[in-house]
Amino acid sequence: MSLRLNCDLGESFGSWKMGLDEAVMPYIDQANIACGFHAGDPLVLQKTLALAKQNDVTIGAHPGYPDLVGFGRRSIKASEAELKAMVLYQIAAIDGMASTQGQTLTYVKPHGAMYNDMMADATIRATIMQAVSEYHRPLVLMLQSTPQAERHQQEADSIGLELWFEIFADRCYDDDGKLLSRTQPGAVHNKEKMMAQVKQLKEQGTVTTVSGQTLTLRADTLCVHGDNMDGVNAIQDIRELIRQ
Amino acid sequence: MSLRLNCDLGESFGSWKMGLDEAVMPYIDQANIACGFHAGDPLVLQKTLALAKQNDVTIGAHPGYPDLVGFGRRSIKASEAELKAMVLYQIAAIDGMASTQGQTLTYVKPHGAMYNDMMADATIRATIMQAVSEYHRPLVLMLQSTPQAERHQQEADSIGLELWFEIFADRCYDDDGKLLSRTQPGAVHNKEKMMAQVKQLKEQGTVTTVSGQTLTLRADTLCVHGDNMDGVNAIQDIRELIRQ
Amino acid sequence: MSLRLNCDLGESFGSWKMGLDEAVMPYIDQANIACGFHAGDPLVLQKTLALAKQNDVTIGAHPGYPDLVGFGRRSIKASEAELKAMVLYQIAAIDGMASTQGQTLTYVKPHGAMYNDMMADATIRATIMQAVSEYHRPLVLMLQSTPQAERHQQEADSIGLELWFEIFADRCYDDDGKLLSRTQPGAVHNKEKMMAQVKQLKEQGTVTTVSGQTLTLRADTLCVHGDNMDGVNAIQDIRELIRQ
Amino acid sequence: MSLRLNCDLGESFGSWKMGLDEAVMPYIDQANIACGFHAGDPLVLQKTLALAKQNDVTIGAHPGYPDLVGFGRRSIKASEAELKAMVLYQIAAIDGMASTQGQTLTYVKPHGAMYNDMMADATIRATIMQAVSEYHRPLVLMLQSTPQAERHQQEADSIGLELWFEIFADRCYDDDGKLLSRTQPGAVHNKEKMMAQVKQLKEQGTVTTVSGQTLTLRADTLCVHGDNMDGVNAIQDIRELIRQ
Repeated sequence: MSLRLNCDLGESFGSWKMGLDEAVMPYIDQANIACGFHAGDPLVLQKTLALAKQNDVTIGAHPGYPDLVGFGRRSIKASEAELKAMVLYQIAAIDGMASTQGQTLTYVKPHGAMYNDMMADATIRATIMQAVSEYHRPLVLMLQSTPQAERHQQEADSIGLELWFEIFADRCYDDDGKLLSRTQPGAVHNKEKMMAQVKQLKEQGTVTTVSGQTLTLRADTLCVHGDNMDGVNAIQDIRELIRQ
Repeated sequence: MSLRLNCDLGESFGSWKMGLDEAVMPYIDQANIACGFHAGDPLVLQKTLALAKQNDVTIGAHPGYPDLVGFGRRSIKASEAELKAMVLYQIAAIDGMASTQGQTLTYVKPHGAMYNDMMADATIRATIMQAVSEYHRPLVLMLQSTPQAERHQQEADSIGLELWFEIFADRCYDDDGKLLSRTQPGAVHNKEKMMAQVKQLKEQGTVTTVSGQTLTLRADTLCVHGDNMDGVNAIQDIRELIRQ
Repeated sequence: MSLRLNCDLGESFGSWKMGLDEAVMPYIDQANIACGFHAGDPLVLQKTLALAKQNDVTIGAHPGYPDLVGFGRRSIKASEAELKAMVLYQIAAIDGMASTQGQTLTYVKPHGAMYNDMMADATIRATIMQAVSEYHRPLVLMLQSTPQAERHQQEADSIGLELWFEIFADRCYDDDGKLLSRTQPGAVHNKEKMMAQVKQLKEQGTVTTVSGQTLTLRADTLCVHGDNMDGVNAIQDIRELIRQ
Repeated sequence: MSLRLNCDLGESFGSWKMGLDEAVMPYIDQANIACGFHAGDPLVLQKTLALAKQNDVTIGAHPGYPDLVGFGRRSIKASEAELKAMVLYQIAAIDGMASTQGQTLTYVKPHGAMYNDMMADATIRATIMQAVSEYHRPLVLMLQSTPQAERHQQEADSIGLELWFEIFADRCYDDDGKLLSRTQPGAVHNKEKMMAQVKQLKEQGTVTTVSGQTLTLRADTLCVHGDNMDGVNAIQDIRELIRQ
């Protein structure tokens, strides 16, 4: 599989708009669609699915913690049973709505703090993997590509779960293969560096870390952002670069 | 089809308990399960589905207005698009969770104010019928049996939707076939009158109205309540009566 | 009292931004600040209060129905006790936060559907008047100026409540003194007509209705909107006109 | 000040009832009243305040994390600004409603995970102390009595905040003065041991830890629970013991 582009979409809520979904959708391959717990509402979800269908974009559930005011960016210490149920509920909601519109949900990518917790905490990761794996139709789990990818793959293989690993196009990696903290200088690439990182990833399958080391990372898909027109323009350029 | 018993279940929310679900489930045929908008949460939903499975009870979605503090009993003037999306979202959520537990969602019964609005307002009824009918798997819509049942059946037939009509076991009917308002004396039957109403319905397919008239009502299922032990005892007695 | 300008502010929620509050605040007299039920959150509320303080703007509570996804624009059939409690709760929340920042809450203007229900339904209006009047500090209630203003004033006088009547700068009035429905052509004035309406109101205390009649309306304050830069520019022009 | 009894109350929400507030209120001195973020709603809050007034009980704000489904028992990693604002908002809401009913809010006791985080994390404790201290009227902060009470007192003194220290009547303490984890045997006292702990505290100002050591703990108030009739009976017996 060649490198795909994925983007968080459907993050408006009621009267509040967020993201340039219409502008972004034609240039991406995979839409991570909010499911109503941290963003999105039934009507926004329905419309975002329709927009993905028009643009022939693969759809993924983007479940989050139940925290609208925090936009799912604040970790909530839920029990394993609560976490599993909230993930399944959100997957089910988008899956049934997608099927009703003649679409097929393909994958799951947790959002925000749930994503970070999944990468940092083996128990939470196991719970999320279990939830996705138990769903009544096969779904792929999208998670961050790190030097621990092999271990994550083994965890998934043991329960028959397929994984897609993602790289962040615009973020600088540290030598451990983690994203450099946003509090550090150079954490977020400018346009030029971002394009260079994508090019290197596409051609050599590596990224250059903050200290100049070369790190090999499995890359199924690239995470891009469509919050504003700069982001949209960057997505268009990455799309062009990846098509070549 | 003989007369079935349906009951609202899964109405606990987080730490707040409501209803004697474990006591009721063995005696009913159809569980109307809250979907998280007016009551229920993902974990409660999951457990209620499991309880229904253990007792071999048919499961129905019980969608409501998004109003936890009002328990879905307050009418919300949503647009048709909002209403349709919120109904589909709730159906999808329970359907996917049920399938994941090896269960099959069979029907939909709107809750509280949404149910009342459906019976009173043709536009709202059409929207709900359309939502249920469009769902990607066939589902039955449960609604109140009234002298307008024939018209409701025609509305449903025109879009290929199956209906189940329900009678309230413990409520007195007025001459128009509506439930006598709770503000009126005799609106809620005592145990003796309730059992007589059920018996008459089973044997003759009629109810006796507040003024003494005999009203023929289509009855696929009887709505019963398990809020407290009196309710549970009544359900057991009705179950016994209907079995005969 | 000369004509004041009031505007709805503090309507962002968590990560979702709404309204150009910083641009609007210097040009208005009265800020109707959302209290967290239909929009706003504790942090947004705090910051909006601070912004009002910097600009020496009078602050009002802008309570709404508890319906974030509907932005308080959908009527919710709450009981009188529920309505009164939800109004008092929201007033109290903003009042205490304002006092903590050294500010004084001055008035209350209900939002969206609650505002419309207040104007259309005498029982709801009585409940809201009662709630505002009972609050432990004197507060003014802002409501729509209509030909029924005299009656509304009597209702308020009977419980010792002060009223401020508002006119909508950009809306066309029908001959009954109601806002022409947005479904009608000409319901929302263009810039030129809006300025003419404000000028006429300031100089003659009247508006010209859709049919060309002249209607005298009591006007303590003008409602303006700062959703976008056009709105902000209009507010600046109205400010200039009113200053003259 | 002699030993007081405090209890969490007002934890019902909409149609969901929790706690035997009417039975408990006559026997306690201080009511920790939920403010709507983790439990309680405006109407429940209003009624609980009225019940406290009838019984001449001192009222305290019981703010929690905004997590109804988790009942405020799950830690949410909020920023300091968010935490401060959510505490002030909840204090303000109950304070204004209390004043409107002719009552005076006296103290603040955080709920559940916010309480635990306050005891475990110095930054969170500083933020909460700051919020309570900044409120426009003087309020006391109630927190857990531990061997660190002296340090907590110094923290509070430095910003002019008064503290009340509470002991849990029914919980076993470990040698560090922490509550023995509920996962350990003997974590929750039976009636006899609870009464012995209260008696020892009243007469000697000490508790006996799980290992048999004697620990001196500052005790302004005892936390008791009224979830069920056993709890209510225990409260009555403690009340009797403390009166002697």
